[in-house]
Amino acid sequence: MIQWNSIVSSVFEEVKLTVSTGQVADYIPQLSGIDPEKYGLCLTPISGDQICAGDADEKFSVQSISKIYAVALAIALKGEDIWKRVGVEPSGNPFNSLVQLEYEKGIPRNPLINAGALVISDILLTYLKDPKQVFLNFVTALCGGDKIQINPAVAESEKLSGFKNASMAFFLKSFNNLDNEVQDVLDFYFFQCAIEMSCRELSQSFQLFAKGGIAPDGKRILTVSQTKRLNALMQTCGFYDESGDFAYRVGLPGKSGVGGGIVAVHPGQYSIAVWSPPLNKKGNSVKGMQTLELLTTRSGMSIF
Amino acid sequence: MIQWNSIVSSVFEEVKLTVSTGQVADYIPQLSGIDPEKYGLCLTPISGDQICAGDADEKFSVQSISKIYAVALAIALKGEDIWKRVGVEPSGNPFNSLVQLEYEKGIPRNPLINAGALVISDILLTYLKDPKQVFLNFVTALCGGDKIQINPAVAESEKLSGFKNASMAFFLKSFNNLDNEVQDVLDFYFFQCAIEMSCRELSQSFQLFAKGGIAPDGKRILTVSQTKRLNALMQTCGFYDESGDFAYRVGLPGKSGVGGGIVAVHPGQYSIAVWSPPLNKKGNSVKGMQTLELLTTRSGMSIF
Amino acid sequence: MIQWNSIVSSVFEEVKLTVSTGQVADYIPQLSGIDPEKYGLCLTPISGDQICAGDADEKFSVQSISKIYAVALAIALKGEDIWKRVGVEPSGNPFNSLVQLEYEKGIPRNPLINAGALVISDILLTYLKDPKQVFLNFVTALCGGDKIQINPAVAESEKLSGFKNASMAFFLKSFNNLDNEVQDVLDFYFFQCAIEMSCRELSQSFQLFAKGGIAPDGKRILTVSQTKRLNALMQTCGFYDESGDFAYRVGLPGKSGVGGGIVAVHPGQYSIAVWSPPLNKKGNSVKGMQTLELLTTRSGMSIF
Amino acid sequence: MIQWNSIVSSVFEEVKLTVSTGQVADYIPQLSGIDPEKYGLCLTPISGDQICAGDADEKFSVQSISKIYAVALAIALKGEDIWKRVGVEPSGNPFNSLVQLEYEKGIPRNPLINAGALVISDILLTYLKDPKQVFLNFVTALCGGDKIQINPAVAESEKLSGFKNASMAFFLKSFNNLDNEVQDVLDFYFFQCAIEMSCRELSQSFQLFAKGGIAPDGKRILTVSQTKRLNALMQTCGFYDESGDFAYRVGLPGKSGVGGGIVAVHPGQYSIAVWSPPLNKKGNSVKGMQTLELLTTRSGMSIF
Repeated sequence: MIQWNSIVSSVFEEVKLTVSTGQVADYIPQLSGIDPEKYGLCLTPISGDQICAGDADEKFSVQSISKIYAVALAIALKGEDIWKRVGVEPSGNPFNSLVQLEYEKGIPRNPLINAGALVISDILLTYLKDPKQVFLNFVTALCGGDKIQINPAVAESEKLSGFKNASMAFFLKSFNNLDNEVQDVLDFYFFQCAIEMSCRELSQSFQLFAKGGIAPDGKRILTVSQTKRLNALMQTCGFYDESGDFAYRVGLPGKSGVGGGIVAVHPGQYSIAVWSPPLNKKGNSVKGMQTLELLTTRSGMSIF
Repeated sequence: MIQWNSIVSSVFEEVKLTVSTGQVADYIPQLSGIDPEKYGLCLTPISGDQICAGDADEKFSVQSISKIYAVALAIALKGEDIWKRVGVEPSGNPFNSLVQLEYEKGIPRNPLINAGALVISDILLTYLKDPKQVFLNFVTALCGGDKIQINPAVAESEKLSGFKNASMAFFLKSFNNLDNEVQDVLDFYFFQCAIEMSCRELSQSFQLFAKGGIAPDGKRILTVSQTKRLNALMQTCGFYDESGDFAYRVGLPGKSGVGGGIVAVHPGQYSIAVWSPPLNKKGNSVKGMQTLELLTTRSGMSIF
Repeated sequence: MIQWNSIVSSVFEEVKLTVSTGQVADYIPQLSGIDPEKYGLCLTPISGDQICAGDADEKFSVQSISKIYAVALAIALKGEDIWKRVGVEPSGNPFNSLVQLEYEKGIPRNPLINAGALVISDILLTYLKDPKQVFLNFVTALCGGDKIQINPAVAESEKLSGFKNASMAFFLKSFNNLDNEVQDVLDFYFFQCAIEMSCRELSQSFQLFAKGGIAPDGKRILTVSQTKRLNALMQTCGFYDESGDFAYRVGLPGKSGVGGGIVAVHPGQYSIAVWSPPLNKKGNSVKGMQTLELLTTRSGMSIF
Repeated sequence: MIQWNSIVSSVFEEVKLTVSTGQVADYIPQLSGIDPEKYGLCLTPISGDQICAGDADEKFSVQSISKIYAVALAIALKGEDIWKRVGVEPSGNPFNSLVQLEYEKGIPRNPLINAGALVISDILLTYLKDPKQVFLNFVTALCGGDKIQINPAVAESEKLSGFKNASMAFFLKSFNNLDNEVQDVLDFYFFQCAIEMSCRELSQSFQLFAKGGIAPDGKRILTVSQTKRLNALMQTCGFYDESGDFAYRVGLPGKSGVGGGIVAVHPGQYSIAVWSPPLNKKGNSVKGMQTLELLTTRSGMSIF
């Protein structure tokens, strides 16, 4: 029996004391203004209570972590059809590169890079009447608690500075891999990135992946096989150009965002979220990576 | 308690009956002449007896699977130093591409692509007095049985047709990432690819990765952390440009070779090897992938 | 003394009889509807009368040929400053590739590929109060005759289908190499592509490059050095991914457009325009290339 | 009538006084030891005497300039067949890049980049009994004087350090675009690079391209059309990744080498060679470029 309480608190105390390296994301004012000393952690075993520490209840911008909810929703609604328009292989290139997309004729390598997430957004836009509301309801249901909201200022700022995403969206459109208007796809994509959640909520929501596709209310959202597939995807593609290093140091499927959040899962065991805004050069939270590396090493609880 | 006996035999019988698609590797005569109907399977639980089926005791050319033994040996001898000369990220490109290598200035993305394996060979050549003998002894020790040998005709054929590997080796040399003579590095690399093993032996040898770094004789070869790292590497990079798909369909760290072999591991649970020569377009055994997909689905025993 | 009359008419008759190969551009209805049998030719010696044949007075969509007028206008207005934002090297890639642009951080290789022309449009937009009118006046002045107009339906169609250009423009914007709004740059760029001219007018306008920068009214538009530079640019970059082949077969600086026009110049000797809508796979007029190859071979009048 | 004497001497005196920037090639000792102050110049009008200045009679390593002699010899012997195995388009990439070669399946973009020159060497090796002797005789005949020789120490040094060329040769071999043994192709290629010539000889030899394919002894070596084609090739591809800039600043077809030599031609007018060892970052002689730019500007004698 793992003594999660003592492991979580010892890891938290140790990492908290380390000097912050890394840089807070600064491409929009809503992110650059965040206090770099914020640090929160929340572990949710598949049975038993959540164990939280630090700023675990403070909401922050989840950014790319939202890609997981979008692809899970798309699979739940459309099934395996989505894989005709987006792949499952790691990208092996910085996350917003257009080169590979050109080489592979407009089929993004996977749904966790920006190009792939735009395709997923397009799929949801086509399929749903009120996609924004359905998306918020979906994430809220996974958290099993208060309503999840977006920060409209973040969505607006992203739109104003998102030239690379706009370029990518038009590029996908030129390959006929977007059905909707580019502006509508971008609008919905930036909406998703702007949701705000706490470590407690993120950790709770990833019970979906720890429990084989079952939501907090006991309802099946994904099949066992679909859940396994998303876990595999997070393992190989969840950390931009650092997925291999994350697998190697931490050994858990997961997803990071430039807001400084990382959420990960040990299928059948636990889910965990950590938040610390300063990022390394690859765009992943420095203390987030440290925390998860220490925690899996001390507990011996990784998938490898 | 998993009923491995019945699962293995039911999967074996089912896959055996499927029509062979795929193409046997034909770039050297020693591979193109193999009977495409050969099919063997061997599962080794961490405790209990091996469960084998079909041609599990017939030796075949392991080819790229040997890259795992080479990198394990390099880590066992040199530790984390090797990561200065080779990375741990998936390559996102066909396995013998030079493009990425040029872009990243001669540091191969990981030790499981050809370029990375050449660097590992160079490291072993520099460090060892009799690298070929040490390599054979190392693999033999992992199998805990009869002496592992190479097929010299295979090594010779590879050398005669290996223009792309020669090109890559000279390219690495031009970036100062090979210390030894190119011809010596290639000679040792082709030697490794030419070892012959049975499914039983492959499966046995991967107990190293199932048991946290302990050899059959109880000796520790790799630390727990190093073992975890190699498992993570196999997970993200073990299947050429199909690693994501393998993770997604099978969910086990592993390595394939163009001889038609695949060996995989569920850390803490079991190791498994399968052999069927016909390959899909990405270079992985068609029936090998089918076998492992069915087996992990029926047993529910994957890491995701 | 070259007998231009007899050479022009013999080349015209010979090429006219050849069976049309190639495909008329079909990405917008205004181009796909053109009669593929149209064929016109007009040669303008630096002294003496124009020699025309066939449909030399029929206006057609000049498309990318307009890039020459834009860059000439930009140099005339801003001088060598423009070379800080766009290069002078051949691109070595299909004309709308984003790869090189990414590799070279948003500085297009030259002003005759689409990315470079977007930067030139941006420069003109910033500098001019009424850029569209100034552009039309500039081209009109070079032709020394009736007012040059655009086809608004062409400009509109381009805008509706121009996803790749939009992608490129946002990409340039992401590298801070566009000062104006992307939509404004695209609007002006598509406007330029939509001007309609006859072979007679095109041939006349290129006297600028034959006469060292002097306009029909005797006014100096470009310095001798600037003219030499634009001629060099057309030589190395004027024919998409076929510039080398054009230099090799024809041996004149020039520029082609997907409307089927080609205009070329022998500095100090003559300018020439030819029009035939069917294009080869590289996007250049099949009969246009034939015509110029024959004409330079028979007259011995090329720069090489 | 151009006053070449006064132009040549005024340009020579002016450039001689400028401070040397640039770096002498240092990848082999035979080049790095050259006195950076060496500076020679020789102009050969198609009729009249050679006009030389400075170190015009001192021999130096012509390096890549030899590629022109090789392709001229290949065309003279084999005609247009050679264009099945090598292209005529500019490369748009640094001169020893493997990327484009991979993308274009082993067909080098043109014979003036290293990959293309290796293919030309292979063609000559297959066709000639004593290729080295024939090559030396061919260059000697073009110079119309003393026997041209190689520096064997240079050839040997190139071979020892030429890992990138070896890589490229094996890569071409892997695409079946070399018929001979890689080592033999490399040996002949390095032999060609090691010939030594003076500015006077280089300038004389390029009369071939000024006079439409006629050798000094009045014999036709190339047809008028073949000569035109090689001139076009030099124009678009002769200066590595700086061909556009050279066309733009100088406006003559030509070829440079890392020994610091540049040789150029104005078809029907004159040929010219210049030598100064320090190179700019693109690998072209700094003073060589200055010299030719000044000379064509002052004389008004460029092709544009």
